[in-house]
Amino acid sequence: MIDLRSDTVTKPTQEMREASFHAEVGDDVYGEDPTVQLLEEKAAKMLEKEAALFVTSGVQGNQIAVLTHTNPGNEVILEEESHLFYYEGAAISAFAGVQPRTVKGNRGAMHPADVEAAIRPEDVHLPETGLVVLENTHNRAGGAVIPLETMRATYDVANRHGIPVHLDGARLFNAVAATGISAKEYAQCTDTVQICLSKGLGAPVGSIIAGSQEFINHARKWRKRLGGGLRQVGVVAAPAMIALTDMSKRLHEDHELAKEIEEGIKEAGFELAYPVETNIVIMDVAKTDMNAEQMVEKLEEAGIKAVPFGPTLVRFVTHFDITKQDIKILKKVFKSMKNAL
Amino acid sequence: MIDLRSDTVTKPTQEMREASFHAEVGDDVYGEDPTVQLLEEKAAKMLEKEAALFVTSGVQGNQIAVLTHTNPGNEVILEEESHLFYYEGAAISAFAGVQPRTVKGNRGAMHPADVEAAIRPEDVHLPETGLVVLENTHNRAGGAVIPLETMRATYDVANRHGIPVHLDGARLFNAVAATGISAKEYAQCTDTVQICLSKGLGAPVGSIIAGSQEFINHARKWRKRLGGGLRQVGVVAAPAMIALTDMSKRLHEDHELAKEIEEGIKEAGFELAYPVETNIVIMDVAKTDMNAEQMVEKLEEAGIKAVPFGPTLVRFVTHFDITKQDIKILKKVFKSMKNAL
Amino acid sequence: MIDLRSDTVTKPTQEMREASFHAEVGDDVYGEDPTVQLLEEKAAKMLEKEAALFVTSGVQGNQIAVLTHTNPGNEVILEEESHLFYYEGAAISAFAGVQPRTVKGNRGAMHPADVEAAIRPEDVHLPETGLVVLENTHNRAGGAVIPLETMRATYDVANRHGIPVHLDGARLFNAVAATGISAKEYAQCTDTVQICLSKGLGAPVGSIIAGSQEFINHARKWRKRLGGGLRQVGVVAAPAMIALTDMSKRLHEDHELAKEIEEGIKEAGFELAYPVETNIVIMDVAKTDMNAEQMVEKLEEAGIKAVPFGPTLVRFVTHFDITKQDIKILKKVFKSMKNAL
Amino acid sequence: MIDLRSDTVTKPTQEMREASFHAEVGDDVYGEDPTVQLLEEKAAKMLEKEAALFVTSGVQGNQIAVLTHTNPGNEVILEEESHLFYYEGAAISAFAGVQPRTVKGNRGAMHPADVEAAIRPEDVHLPETGLVVLENTHNRAGGAVIPLETMRATYDVANRHGIPVHLDGARLFNAVAATGISAKEYAQCTDTVQICLSKGLGAPVGSIIAGSQEFINHARKWRKRLGGGLRQVGVVAAPAMIALTDMSKRLHEDHELAKEIEEGIKEAGFELAYPVETNIVIMDVAKTDMNAEQMVEKLEEAGIKAVPFGPTLVRFVTHFDITKQDIKILKKVFKSMKNAL
Ligand SMILES: [Ca+2]
Ligand SMILES: [Ca+2]
Ligand SMILES: [Ca+2]
Ligand SMILES: [Ca+2]
Ligand SMILES: [Ca+2]
Ligand SMILES: [Ca+2]
Repeated sequence: MIDLRSDTVTKPTQEMREASFHAEVGDDVYGEDPTVQLLEEKAAKMLEKEAALFVTSGVQGNQIAVLTHTNPGNEVILEEESHLFYYEGAAISAFAGVQPRTVKGNRGAMHPADVEAAIRPEDVHLPETGLVVLENTHNRAGGAVIPLETMRATYDVANRHGIPVHLDGARLFNAVAATGISAKEYAQCTDTVQICLSKGLGAPVGSIIAGSQEFINHARKWRKRLGGGLRQVGVVAAPAMIALTDMSKRLHEDHELAKEIEEGIKEAGFELAYPVETNIVIMDVAKTDMNAEQMVEKLEEAGIKAVPFGPTLVRFVTHFDITKQDIKILKKVFKSMKNAL
Repeated sequence: MIDLRSDTVTKPTQEMREASFHAEVGDDVYGEDPTVQLLEEKAAKMLEKEAALFVTSGVQGNQIAVLTHTNPGNEVILEEESHLFYYEGAAISAFAGVQPRTVKGNRGAMHPADVEAAIRPEDVHLPETGLVVLENTHNRAGGAVIPLETMRATYDVANRHGIPVHLDGARLFNAVAATGISAKEYAQCTDTVQICLSKGLGAPVGSIIAGSQEFINHARKWRKRLGGGLRQVGVVAAPAMIALTDMSKRLHEDHELAKEIEEGIKEAGFELAYPVETNIVIMDVAKTDMNAEQMVEKLEEAGIKAVPFGPTLVRFVTHFDITKQDIKILKKVFKSMKNAL
Repeated sequence: MIDLRSDTVTKPTQEMREASFHAEVGDDVYGEDPTVQLLEEKAAKMLEKEAALFVTSGVQGNQIAVLTHTNPGNEVILEEESHLFYYEGAAISAFAGVQPRTVKGNRGAMHPADVEAAIRPEDVHLPETGLVVLENTHNRAGGAVIPLETMRATYDVANRHGIPVHLDGARLFNAVAATGISAKEYAQCTDTVQICLSKGLGAPVGSIIAGSQEFINHARKWRKRLGGGLRQVGVVAAPAMIALTDMSKRLHEDHELAKEIEEGIKEAGFELAYPVETNIVIMDVAKTDMNAEQMVEKLEEAGIKAVPFGPTLVRFVTHFDITKQDIKILKKVFKSMKNAL
Repeated sequence: MIDLRSDTVTKPTQEMREASFHAEVGDDVYGEDPTVQLLEEKAAKMLEKEAALFVTSGVQGNQIAVLTHTNPGNEVILEEESHLFYYEGAAISAFAGVQPRTVKGNRGAMHPADVEAAIRPEDVHLPETGLVVLENTHNRAGGAVIPLETMRATYDVANRHGIPVHLDGARLFNAVAATGISAKEYAQCTDTVQICLSKGLGAPVGSIIAGSQEFINHARKWRKRLGGGLRQVGVVAAPAMIALTDMSKRLHEDHELAKEIEEGIKEAGFELAYPVETNIVIMDVAKTDMNAEQMVEKLEEAGIKAVPFGPTLVRFVTHFDITKQDIKILKKVFKSMKNAL
């Protein structure tokens, strides 16, 4: 099977397994795991933040950010199909007691003026706006890159109103690979950042959140409450380090393969929901006689795994375990499916 | 001053004060206030629900409904400018731990198909949809009536998915007055209803929630936690009874005055945001050289109180304390303001 | 029936009803009810705090204090049978997300050293101590007065650790009546105070919270979220004003009646759980062949209402609607019950 | 250094590292990691529960249990120094919105009658009792074993009242090693169990929760919200399997070493807080001129790491990385410290 469901399916490389095998470890709840400390320092440096913290997943990193930045009864502004709103089980309301205020973006990018319009004035009837969240690249917008200028303008708006900004950068390094703009530059436009190491970067487990030292101090306690305080965490921090430092450099390869898929879809006469920007391809089957579920089934029969992404949308994600040969096969599958219609 | 800011500004009538003065009272935490019991029975009957509960405000009634129907981590579907989402301080997230999922309505009426599309399938990433909320009449949509058929179709959708429906009927009797459809008929399209007695109905204090006996049993405990368990509550239940039984019959008078305001706005050459349906009038000053704040100020100078309702919108609400003569004056004010532009 | 279940059963006096009848009212959500404003000013003055806020019940006042002082994940130190822990439906955990840390008191008075020992040091495993709560008089300790020196010493401890103190003074004026120490003096030992107007003070509805102006500003929004923002609230604020200013001066009469009950219990050969200090009397039937439920039933048959207060405890509360004659009857009932054993 | 601070400091064995190196992995969010599935099946079998779930820590397992069993506004009965109450940052209140109701135990074992007395009757003022939590072995009671009969009697009480029981069995296998009673037998006295693999069992990371299939289905979503849904989790599940199956058999060795420490303390003339039952030793320095902090410092100078466990208490925990030789050294240290006093 050629597995294009998500870049989360990547398996740890041989090098990662070796790094884990030899990792120096200690009890991180006592602050004594040297491997995770190196990882956190490296991540803080790459993102030019005062401090960073290893967490077990992107969801955990995002939830910690919301718990740390906000108070119950606050409102959080985020894009209407952002991961934090759409895919995290309403956890920001269940745990942090905050209400999402969604803003429709243009390919995932909220217009700074729309963000500003969504900020609440002080009034006894209204929640206080406590946080703005950006997602870059934006998953449900098809891996779209949020332009740096948009991020900066949004950050300016938020700063003017004294509201912190968090970046869900689960796939930030895909934006970096696509634009050549460094992670630091993106991170300068937000107070805190979460990056996933287990998606395109291929680590078996883990994400990072970064921000001010004070933010990380509070974050550490919320991580403990969420059950993310681990013991000999070096065994997963070691492969995560390779993900962060080496794998982040090869994401352009995934993007090239995604472009190939885009071409294959067009050539076969199928349609795209959006032009491809990074490693995510969204096909729209609205004009065929299949819905998304049926298309995914058909693909499965042909040895291709993808996921339904809406009634007529199908998502393909390229990653380290996908080869050029795999994509050639996929293209043939598209053609023969089209012919069979 | 002619106070058109809200129908909440109505003062208790002489009759209400007398009813309060003579009210038989007891300790309602012990279930011994006969006056509130009569009110609750009457309300349950008018709404054809098994039971009803007196609460101190519409906000409290709505919050109790959400607390009783849902579990933390649920999602609640509601209209994107509904009172529960827009004006209740994010309390549903702070207290019930649920996430609002907003749907854009047509004059406040969510399309049943849009409600259905917003219901979440079961998946580990997704919140469970725990409640659908309707608001009738819809305040921010300019006092618009949600059509009975829309409510019924929405209820059918919700029932099919096993999801309860709550009606924020703070101004339900305005819908009744506008359409001639009874409160019962509206209430048949929802599991629970909240009605405000202190808006157009003129009671000094209080709202009602109604639903099944089991719902009310749970609601009673949530009311206690919110601090809404009162003692000799008959002193406010007595005037509230008059509001419910007598005042509900005269709301058409408020609607006629609102129509007069609409006419006055048009005749003076100003614009309306929406055609008037009940007792709320929304003027749009976008095409003047004033914004909403400035228009409200100008009106205030002329002895008229209204409220800004958005950057270019101004809201006027008619109610029992407004006379035909007041509206005549307002019309003159509109004309002279227009001439002065 | 002679109703000694609680001082909450007091009915509004004729004077209170008249005050309500003539009360000048306005919409308090707009800050325009002159009667509630006078009440709030008066209460702030009597408690020597910057500001005060009318709330619908003692529970609401207490919950607002916890919501305003704390953050989720905090711990609140309170006496193990305090009202806030014992009788408020776990609302501080449900709404404010804080964990009670109970300390056993001596007749309701926590030893300041025990309070200090319960304060948590900073550690990633531990909640932060966010609030200390005192209750004076203490209901479940039988209306016991917490000594002023204990309150002051506790406040010193809390101040040294930077932790705010809230006083649940639902029956603070009973402490005042019992000791001659003014409400101000008690209030000086806490940051915020809640006093009930509908218990011994006899108002039909309402409580007050008082504190710094900043505290009250935040409290106002939490009150709105809880549904405690009322409209023409003057109708209940007017009788509440009489409760606060006049009725607070007559509580010594209730205390004398409670002493009479104590005497009656002793004379009949029954036992007391505690010596009487204010208006609450706790009888202990452990040495009879009845449990509390049975004793309450027997009393009911004799025309006396009391409440079970534990497996062998029965509570009697004196109040404005109880006469000397009532107590004479009660004493006879005790005697004949004893004889019948 | 001889590190006796906690059994969490154990480092993964060579065999564990190899198991991780060769582990077959997949994306567990898609349910495709075969290694974690084997682990969960094995754990369910050992605990004789329908299903089990891998979580990242004991805290996470406990929190998930509370989130799954309870509703906001519930009360949870637990021992007054239980881990869930004492060391989890008030997370049950912050996340699940429930209030702890603490009961004093005898060496960690709550008397079943005390548990029953703490269960709340139905009343509008009272929280509903939603869960009883046991901890076996009990950390703060010095690794004490809760007798099986106590657990069974408590379970009977809870069942009679329709209340679920959760076992915090972070060190359940220490109880098994001490008594010869199987994990199954203990687990039969509770609805759900959490066991830690990273304490005495030596895994680098991870815990298990087990219960009915329905419980685990709900738990899985709460785990996702907490950020505990991992991807290629087999890399930590593989060493955890060795911890569960092999390491659980050798805990008696740790207990023997703990007995040696006990002897050393006595022989040197120091005192114990409690007799040793498993792998935890609590020394009481109250009768020396040192407090706990000072004793810990002194020990550190002598190459021994322990932790303060109260003003005069010092905790030592034996584990896989401690040798007989280490304990000999410790005994000498005790003697020379005593001589130096
Ligand atoms: Ca991966
Ligand atoms: Ca909460
Ligand atoms: Ca009114
Ligand atoms: Ca009263
Ligand atoms: Ca705060
Ligand atoms: Ca370990």
